[in-house]
Amino acid sequence: MPTDRIYNFAPGPSMLPLPVLEQAASEMTNYRGTGMSVMEMSHRGKEYLSIFEETKADLKRLLKVPDSHEIIFMQGGATLQFSAVPMNLIGKTGKADYAVTGNFSNVAMKEAKKYGEINIACSSADKNHTYIPEQGDIKLTADASYFHYCCNNTIFGTEWKYIPETGDVPIVCDMSSNIMSVPVDVSKYGLIYAGVQKNMAPAGVAVVIIDKTLAGNEHPLTPKLMSYKLMIDADSMNNTPPCYTIYMLGLVLKWLDTQGGIEGMSHIKAEKAKLLYDVLDDSSIFIGCAEKPSRSDMNITFRIESEELNDKFVKEAKAEGFCNLKGHRSVGGMRASIYNAMPIEGVRGLATFMRDFELKNK
Amino acid sequence: MPTDRIYNFAPGPSMLPLPVLEQAASEMTNYRGTGMSVMEMSHRGKEYLSIFEETKADLKRLLKVPDSHEIIFMQGGATLQFSAVPMNLIGKTGKADYAVTGNFSNVAMKEAKKYGEINIACSSADKNHTYIPEQGDIKLTADASYFHYCCNNTIFGTEWKYIPETGDVPIVCDMSSNIMSVPVDVSKYGLIYAGVQKNMAPAGVAVVIIDKTLAGNEHPLTPKLMSYKLMIDADSMNNTPPCYTIYMLGLVLKWLDTQGGIEGMSHIKAEKAKLLYDVLDDSSIFIGCAEKPSRSDMNITFRIESEELNDKFVKEAKAEGFCNLKGHRSVGGMRASIYNAMPIEGVRGLATFMRDFELKNK
Repeated sequence: MPTDRIYNFAPGPSMLPLPVLEQAASEMTNYRGTGMSVMEMSHRGKEYLSIFEETKADLKRLLKVPDSHEIIFMQGGATLQFSAVPMNLIGKTGKADYAVTGNFSNVAMKEAKKYGEINIACSSADKNHTYIPEQGDIKLTADASYFHYCCNNTIFGTEWKYIPETGDVPIVCDMSSNIMSVPVDVSKYGLIYAGVQKNMAPAGVAVVIIDKTLAGNEHPLTPKLMSYKLMIDADSMNNTPPCYTIYMLGLVLKWLDTQGGIEGMSHIKAEKAKLLYDVLDDSSIFIGCAEKPSRSDMNITFRIESEELNDKFVKEAKAEGFCNLKGHRSVGGMRASIYNAMPIEGVRGLATFMRDFELKNK
Repeated sequence: MPTDRIYNFAPGPSMLPLPVLEQAASEMTNYRGTGMSVMEMSHRGKEYLSIFEETKADLKRLLKVPDSHEIIFMQGGATLQFSAVPMNLIGKTGKADYAVTGNFSNVAMKEAKKYGEINIACSSADKNHTYIPEQGDIKLTADASYFHYCCNNTIFGTEWKYIPETGDVPIVCDMSSNIMSVPVDVSKYGLIYAGVQKNMAPAGVAVVIIDKTLAGNEHPLTPKLMSYKLMIDADSMNNTPPCYTIYMLGLVLKWLDTQGGIEGMSHIKAEKAKLLYDVLDDSSIFIGCAEKPSRSDMNITFRIESEELNDKFVKEAKAEGFCNLKGHRSVGGMRASIYNAMPIEGVRGLATFMRDFELKNK
């Protein structure tokens, strides 16, 4: 890590791999002899189409997306998918099940109510979302059009460790904050979506992976750019896509290959998370916010009993180059978001800083 | 112009100012001492908010946006606005008027039909969109919720030289392909929108400028991210905006200041267009596609009678570094898109190339 760069623990947008940024900078005014920046390329031209196709192919390979599913790139982040999912999918029966385990799954559930009858299949609101419900806690609607959940809760620091069993009901999952950190059996999902700005690329695109048989039943008022069917048919080019963001995603995927792909990354992320959870488990001042079996490997939430010490921690950590550690207001304390691009040296440094801080302040 | 860069006459995405690209490259891994790329910044952090606010303020200043209007940044380009405009605005009376003068205004009109009763107020389809109708040709609906037109038609190379008179009916205008090339009286518009990838920034954001009194009457099924009211209330931050694209827009606006702002740019663009139209007017082989009074200063469409010579022209021009001159299939021939970032040297070079080509091939 160059000394002029910080370790940025923000919940997203957050760090990108330094080699990726360096490559983007070096290609900025002339991409590989084309005489153009990627930003200047026509999205219909052969130069850009080759970037686009390679990025899509790398995503398919790394995530092992089966041929039954299609990858599409959409704008509007995960939030526009909160609307697109029900507009496209709820028409089958007019009903859907939602698991509410954090802020974004709650916002998604509320938005879906515009479009149909929503059943809250399970909720962790009773304990301020400090845990993930078990399979036995989930009350399914037999004729739901789909079951929706968010598999990693950025604010509360919890992560689903299992894929819910829903019988014949297709599963829709918001993977914005842990996609590509752990291998996933895509065939078990009807639809996966993820805003890219946490674990994949700069903000500006949502990756959607959809079982093709689910497309084509959208509400008649669905905006054309939000129809999964039209997006599949046009290979995400119903209009000009966010070309440069997709190019950046492509660079990140090449970097992911150098880390051993998703398999390799899953070992690295487990090691990174363990460094911080070991500090929490050994500590007499740091308190983990999430229940142990539900702890997220991406967002580590913790606090100190004294508000004064929480503030002091965030301030002193920043002075050492460990930045953006303040927790979300609905949880308080601290949050260390350690997405794929956070170097292990940054996490190791933070762990050491935490142990030193405890020695000085207990 | 460095010799390794091409003159890119693509209709969009297209050229960006070289100093802007160079600055972006130099700031890529560490933005002005923050230790982060702009791509890595939290959209809620003070570093990014200062970029965001300055960009918005520069846009307001350069476009002379009155306080009655609000600037918002949305995703999905102009195409998502084709849906957002009727979803937000047609509810007043259930009707709207559309002028159809090219491809995008036609697509916008068709999309609007999902949401209400649409009257085609005027159309230039009778002559393959080679002209812009006059005020007397426009048949207005007295109780229309709004009147929609696209003031520059990229494919056909025509441009509205006047703002239609619509009485009390608010005017909605798609300015994607000529925004910031000419001064505009924003107060005359109910709503202006523009995908940025032609004249302002890389693809990934649409700028919307709305008379605030028009917001808040959206259809109940409007996705939350498409509600103008919610976007105004959240200052475009209902979710993570496309941060880097907005930063690039900000750099382009600073560059525009060095060109004399929009006033200065309007003289430059008129000079650039004249260089090419003079060639067409003097020529015995090049034929302008658009009728003279309706010619666009942004997209110059022309052809040669012989298809063989059209192909030869495009090929030989490319060999000289004048690229992407092939016309759209619905017009044929050639199209030179000369947006703000196209240097006048590129246009002068193309004009010379055209005169030489004529000498050799007539």
